[in-house]
Amino acid sequence: MTIFTSLPEMQQLAERIRQQGKRIGVVPTMGALHAGHLSLIQHAQEKTDIVITTIFVNPKQFGPTEDFEKYPRDIDRDVKMIEECGCDIVFIPKKGEMYPEQFATFVGTESYENILEGKSRPSHFRGVTTVVAKLLHITKPHVAVFGQKDAQQVFIVRKMVRDLNFDVQIITAPIIRESDGLAMSSRNVYLSSEERKEACVLFQSLQRAEKLITEGERVSSNIIFSMKNLVEEKPNARLDYISIADWSTLEEMETIRAGKEILISLAVRFGNTRLIDNTVVNV
Amino acid sequence: MTIFTSLPEMQQLAERIRQQGKRIGVVPTMGALHAGHLSLIQHAQEKTDIVITTIFVNPKQFGPTEDFEKYPRDIDRDVKMIEECGCDIVFIPKKGEMYPEQFATFVGTESYENILEGKSRPSHFRGVTTVVAKLLHITKPHVAVFGQKDAQQVFIVRKMVRDLNFDVQIITAPIIRESDGLAMSSRNVYLSSEERKEACVLFQSLQRAEKLITEGERVSSNIIFSMKNLVEEKPNARLDYISIADWSTLEEMETIRAGKEILISLAVRFGNTRLIDNTVVNV
Repeated sequence: MTIFTSLPEMQQLAERIRQQGKRIGVVPTMGALHAGHLSLIQHAQEKTDIVITTIFVNPKQFGPTEDFEKYPRDIDRDVKMIEECGCDIVFIPKKGEMYPEQFATFVGTESYENILEGKSRPSHFRGVTTVVAKLLHITKPHVAVFGQKDAQQVFIVRKMVRDLNFDVQIITAPIIRESDGLAMSSRNVYLSSEERKEACVLFQSLQRAEKLITEGERVSSNIIFSMKNLVEEKPNARLDYISIADWSTLEEMETIRAGKEILISLAVRFGNTRLIDNTVVNV
Repeated sequence: MTIFTSLPEMQQLAERIRQQGKRIGVVPTMGALHAGHLSLIQHAQEKTDIVITTIFVNPKQFGPTEDFEKYPRDIDRDVKMIEECGCDIVFIPKKGEMYPEQFATFVGTESYENILEGKSRPSHFRGVTTVVAKLLHITKPHVAVFGQKDAQQVFIVRKMVRDLNFDVQIITAPIIRESDGLAMSSRNVYLSSEERKEACVLFQSLQRAEKLITEGERVSSNIIFSMKNLVEEKPNARLDYISIADWSTLEEMETIRAGKEILISLAVRFGNTRLIDNTVVNV
């Protein structure tokens, strides 16, 4: 496995790999890897000849009050895990090379970046689309793999790729969960043991929503009310939002209509730790 | 010469050309071609194996009160001129394919898009960077050629390319002028014969500025005052702005400092026609 930190060297190698007629897959990560990330690498390996995993804690997608400084970092462990997966290349760019002084360009997706997660995290998605655009240009992939856990991120990246005509296929890999249903996340390490036990309530509330819909409930506010009650049973949980939206547009729906894919998503805080989860339901 | 209108077909061909190890040059235009555009094609031909000229009147770079609807269009004449240059491919995308319903993504360059031309044309440069990002992804060039006449556009495109790590070389081709010094522009056809005669005042005022600087003048306001006087001698001319800026940052300078490249630029209206011109002076 080769490690690159230089942007031009990574880009030149990617160009050479393409010239050889090989297909490149990229898995953008912020490090602090878990089994969810490793599944993304596997998906990329199934689709392409050469897989590049990128590790970059992207300052532009953190708000001023968010956890950029204390975001978990353990490059040695990450690199070891990636190598054990049989990944070909790790790209670990430096912040100063990614965002030199005078950096001014950004990619935005207008209304899509200010809803759902974007309401709680202004500027987050602009940071994501900007860094993903950069990483796609540097690593020149045929396929890029993102996790469904960050559902709105996947939606917005797909939107950007389609709107700006990036010649890359975006693949979404399913959420990987702990045995009690908690979605794997680099932020789970922040949880106290008590919070950790309570945190499975995100998954439980999504299961409750799925059950209600299966039983015929179509009024979003009823489903949200029931989810909210479940979350509030946990003493350390503070609900940020629950949303029921059309997965093809991210528009929130008052009434669930048949023939739609529905994104049910929520964010819950435990202390300073903010967890998200979601499920897509076919109605 | 081959004409493409389909985005995916153009993109697939570009990928095949790259696979063959050939270098692609692209010349993005809005049609209504003149000798200035043809010189851009020549520059591209000198640097690359296959040249793609694009023709697309980009609605996103026109303000609501600007001349999008009446912008001169003559595709047959344009295609003939491009063919006579020995250009290989013309790409003429359709508006609905470039900007389908639900299009939401844009590329911006923050502070750089609201100064100089951007002050008079809000949203103009965001439209330019967005369409150039799209065209670079569709035509996959090694080299893209832009004209120095739109100096701020060149600056901003270079900024975007560097910041977002597009793997393309941007080449700037010098301004091509009529015999009286008027910079060639598709908008010159709007001018009445009287306005056309007066329009060389843009070039004349730039020459005056160069002369003053050569003679030792270093105070920008003195140079601007002298240029303004010259413009105002023309009865139909209405000055929009004159700017003296650091060409490496676009920052306006009160005093011209040695060792700098200075961008002197101006915009002047004749009736509804807005003309721009500029020169870069080494001090």
